[in-house]
Amino acid sequence: MTDLNREKCEACRSGAPKVEGEELRALMREIPDWSVESREGIMQLERRYAFPDFARALVFTDKVGELAESEGHHPRLTTEWGSVTVTWWTHKIKGLHRNDFIMAARTDRL
Amino acid sequence: MTDLNREKCEACRSGAPKVEGEELRALMREIPDWSVESREGIMQLERRYAFPDFARALVFTDKVGELAESEGHHPRLTTEWGSVTVTWWTHKIKGLHRNDFIMAARTDRL
Repeated sequence: MTDLNREKCEACRSGAPKVEGEELRALMREIPDWSVESREGIMQLERRYAFPDFARALVFTDKVGELAESEGHHPRLTTEWGSVTVTWWTHKIKGLHRNDFIMAARTDRL
Repeated sequence: MTDLNREKCEACRSGAPKVEGEELRALMREIPDWSVESREGIMQLERRYAFPDFARALVFTDKVGELAESEGHHPRLTTEWGSVTVTWWTHKIKGLHRNDFIMAARTDRL
């Protein structure tokens, strides 16, 4: 088990390799509550967090937003009554970078 | 032109009639930047607001959240770098109530 949730994002350039194959499977084992979704050919990490109401969902959205700003890497945050769905991917490479797994693990730690 | 954005939501019960037909067309003229989306047979009002970065998108999300809490009627808020997509509909009637048009108009006023 690595300490993915203690890692920092590294600078990501357009040509950086996507995470796939065995590396993808190994990293997914580190964040077992997340799933991989493919949308318009772009792989994304996604997890839905449940909350008892809207206000507490929005507080979590703000916390994830703060984390995102601190790392300069931003997810899609879908806030509804009772849930927040967090989606991480890397626009520059139209897919998954190690940074996305780091951010998923750090989102879990919030 | 009514003052939709000055109206308050009324209590909505399960059997309340959905907005449709001519009433729907008339109300849509009051909120010209919104579109009607149908998802799994449920009509929803949707608008994407553009922002220059993530932080300002999140500030808007919080403002809409505050409005939602004040009226006890809650949208889906999808926050991304550069945009917030706001979606209003009424769970109880699985469709659009006049309240949703009021909330859309009030969202525009933020």
